[in-house]
Amino acid sequence: MQFSAAQIAMMIGGEVEGDANLAVSSFGKIEEAQKGQLAFLANPKYEEFIYTTKASIIIINKSFELKQPVAAALIRVPDAYSAFAALLRKYQEIMTQQLTGIQQPSYISQSALLGETVYVGAFTYIGENVQIGNNVKLFPGVFLGNNVRISDNTVLYAGVKIYNDCVVGKNVTIHAGAVIGADGFGFAPQANGTYKKIPQIGNVVIEDFVEIGCNTCIDRATIGSTIIHTGAKLDNLIQIAHNVEIGCNTVIAAQAGISGSTKVGNNVVVGGQAGIVGHLHIADGSKINAQSGVTKSIKIPNVAVTGSPAFDYTSALRSQAVMRNLPDLEKRIAELEKQVQQLTGAQVNA
Amino acid sequence: MQFSAAQIAMMIGGEVEGDANLAVSSFGKIEEAQKGQLAFLANPKYEEFIYTTKASIIIINKSFELKQPVAAALIRVPDAYSAFAALLRKYQEIMTQQLTGIQQPSYISQSALLGETVYVGAFTYIGENVQIGNNVKLFPGVFLGNNVRISDNTVLYAGVKIYNDCVVGKNVTIHAGAVIGADGFGFAPQANGTYKKIPQIGNVVIEDFVEIGCNTCIDRATIGSTIIHTGAKLDNLIQIAHNVEIGCNTVIAAQAGISGSTKVGNNVVVGGQAGIVGHLHIADGSKINAQSGVTKSIKIPNVAVTGSPAFDYTSALRSQAVMRNLPDLEKRIAELEKQVQQLTGAQVNA
Amino acid sequence: MQFSAAQIAMMIGGEVEGDANLAVSSFGKIEEAQKGQLAFLANPKYEEFIYTTKASIIIINKSFELKQPVAAALIRVPDAYSAFAALLRKYQEIMTQQLTGIQQPSYISQSALLGETVYVGAFTYIGENVQIGNNVKLFPGVFLGNNVRISDNTVLYAGVKIYNDCVVGKNVTIHAGAVIGADGFGFAPQANGTYKKIPQIGNVVIEDFVEIGCNTCIDRATIGSTIIHTGAKLDNLIQIAHNVEIGCNTVIAAQAGISGSTKVGNNVVVGGQAGIVGHLHIADGSKINAQSGVTKSIKIPNVAVTGSPAFDYTSALRSQAVMRNLPDLEKRIAELEKQVQQLTGAQVNA
Repeated sequence: MQFSAAQIAMMIGGEVEGDANLAVSSFGKIEEAQKGQLAFLANPKYEEFIYTTKASIIIINKSFELKQPVAAALIRVPDAYSAFAALLRKYQEIMTQQLTGIQQPSYISQSALLGETVYVGAFTYIGENVQIGNNVKLFPGVFLGNNVRISDNTVLYAGVKIYNDCVVGKNVTIHAGAVIGADGFGFAPQANGTYKKIPQIGNVVIEDFVEIGCNTCIDRATIGSTIIHTGAKLDNLIQIAHNVEIGCNTVIAAQAGISGSTKVGNNVVVGGQAGIVGHLHIADGSKINAQSGVTKSIKIPNVAVTGSPAFDYTSALRSQAVMRNLPDLEKRIAELEKQVQQLTGAQVNA
Repeated sequence: MQFSAAQIAMMIGGEVEGDANLAVSSFGKIEEAQKGQLAFLANPKYEEFIYTTKASIIIINKSFELKQPVAAALIRVPDAYSAFAALLRKYQEIMTQQLTGIQQPSYISQSALLGETVYVGAFTYIGENVQIGNNVKLFPGVFLGNNVRISDNTVLYAGVKIYNDCVVGKNVTIHAGAVIGADGFGFAPQANGTYKKIPQIGNVVIEDFVEIGCNTCIDRATIGSTIIHTGAKLDNLIQIAHNVEIGCNTVIAAQAGISGSTKVGNNVVVGGQAGIVGHLHIADGSKINAQSGVTKSIKIPNVAVTGSPAFDYTSALRSQAVMRNLPDLEKRIAELEKQVQQLTGAQVNA
Repeated sequence: MQFSAAQIAMMIGGEVEGDANLAVSSFGKIEEAQKGQLAFLANPKYEEFIYTTKASIIIINKSFELKQPVAAALIRVPDAYSAFAALLRKYQEIMTQQLTGIQQPSYISQSALLGETVYVGAFTYIGENVQIGNNVKLFPGVFLGNNVRISDNTVLYAGVKIYNDCVVGKNVTIHAGAVIGADGFGFAPQANGTYKKIPQIGNVVIEDFVEIGCNTCIDRATIGSTIIHTGAKLDNLIQIAHNVEIGCNTVIAAQAGISGSTKVGNNVVVGGQAGIVGHLHIADGSKINAQSGVTKSIKIPNVAVTGSPAFDYTSALRSQAVMRNLPDLEKRIAELEKQVQQLTGAQVNA
């Protein structure tokens, strides 16, 4: 697919400056782009590259003033970054919409119900009584256990595995290798030192507009549901234990872990590799710094915490600053001890 | 499947109080349960819900005294929680036992030996000379490399991958996406800065009654075996490096990592996101707190450690408490320095 | 396959001592080896085992002096460890070379181009316009999205998933369950608290001689490429975010995470569970200790750092040592305060 500067200008409501016939077939960063690529310039830090880039077309802000002529065709718009992002989104939509139909071999139980314009990749397994909405895309090697329900427009990438009875909402994206609904980690210690498994018969409910990263694990509830609420975004390799709830529009970075039965509020931000112990409440708008270990509920909204164990961000930073000077602090104490001893000695002598 | 209060009472040896014909088809938590669900009440904290729940049947302790009449049928037993858990276990057993037979397409090498009442899901791959015991369940998309052995009653969920020559015992459960027997991370540094791979030709041995969480990785030994001993329970996203041994009934929480050749004793508890460096011995009954970094062997049994680097729990907690007051401590030292300087000045003047 | 001591001696240029007809069919550690196994002795710490091992053949250093006769056939070489490792490598090569041909069922797009002596395992999916070099091994259940390119001699183990447009070099090994090229974690916050996805249309480029561990995730760039340079070695369960670059011969241990757009130099060593925040530069030869949290660029090459937040290794170790004595330090300050108060009191009285 090739598009000329004139065509793209029309799509995004911009004005062409230069050769309107120059054409592109892919996207590039202004500092790396090659002939046939479309780039954009929004950040003034990258301004110099507009004079050296090999990109064929560049989207720039209306207000931008050229200091010398450039080879590329320019398309001027009120907001170059937004216009470029909108084009990217359009491009991805087109690419995904092309995916449709059922590839063979795949395994679809007779009792499963599939919506319209669904894509089922090869080697995908759809269990008994599964319900799949319209426009759902199941990439190759997806596994859906019995009674799973997937709503409209949701995309499951290659090798996503969803255990029986789990429910996935609309417009959800789950990346390759993620596992939804495996047993929660529940074992009752026995008198002889062994453990007896506590059956995990709940499920996972993923609401609309959630995105889940690759190889992330969300365990089913013991009873009831582990819930990821509308609009939450989870990165890769995250652990969500049984009976956890993640609030609306909460964002969790890679490799973080949330222990059993903890309720994370709305619009919370959890940094990478952070951990939260079980049975806590994390107030709306909390900010949990990367690698923090949260051991107590956060009751006041919009508080930032850091450290392991985590405490409030400002005093933690102060402690960390002193921490770096600990050896120096110890020397100052030793020096004081010497001086005080001398003083005490002098006093005794006096 | 529907069961009446009378039927369930018979199964668990309880006595019905109320309408013995009320029936249920699933389980619920007392605070969330709906009509047609079975709930239980054991924890007094949840007592109020018995008067408001929509559950059709509730299992309660014989000794429990009602303060007002309830709508649900009650089944009284000596220990409500145990009776409920037993029912859950029975339910799961029935669900799993129904799984049997070989789904198509699957790939089973001619030299493979399969036991009785085995389930082989679609898209499961069974390599050369693989031996599979009775009543084993292989969910869709499982990969078993050449010479793998799996003993009776073991369940491998969707997409479990086991490299060649690994051995899995009886009554083992491995959750979706776990990888058993990939190469250990061994590279010999060369004079020119590159690394030469050290071949990893050992295997992994998983003994009986082990449970392994989803997307957990257990690497094969360089030579010999990486061993997970009987009854150990591993959560999700755990890293077990080459030549590690995990003792009997040891429990490891999600995202923990054990480095190469470390031997973890029996009945150890390792918290989430904890790490243990290589070539250590961890004594029986050790408790390693979440996010700890263990850098030295733990030689005395039943000791708890925390922190990174980890040291003994009680003094670590004391240090952490002081840590929070470090800026205050620094102020006290500065104040002392001022006072001592004044004292010294006064003495000189005197 | 069985080999006699005479045959093995010929392969590795060694001299047999004892029964040259003794034969082996597998490898073992000297302390565990059984009849029919080949072991080696290089580390003097294991010397005692040469007199008790059941191994049939042992490779030892030319210079080694026996204190008493042994049952096994010995093969003497200048460097026992190197000779043994070379044999292991040879053995693995033979095992892997046997893998060839296309197993059914597999899914190969008509537009895909395959090289010579390629292995395609059952249930492997090869998308449109994929190009695969000579001698490439794709284990069962691999997924290659459209336009993926894989160069000669590369091995992808079971269930590796590579999203569209990614490029993998020569002699690369990727272990089971790794995901290459999933969307980077990029979302633009909106005024109403929701997030809008930033399309991720770049790719991942993995250069030659790279090894990647199981269930590791390497995200595609937003625009441009996430790059793993020649000879880098990544362990299991690692997170590499969008637009990251990992330098040549850099080694990253399990469960480490590198945030978006960070550039890690050549010959860097990153310890297990370490994290590096986004948009940093890590100088060549840096050593980042396990569980460290790197929050600032490392500008001077060959510096070691530790801690979270990380600072230079030597002073961090000193701080950690004092950290352990913090409660003691606090007591010393309290004692000083008492003494100084007494001194001040005495002075006032005087």
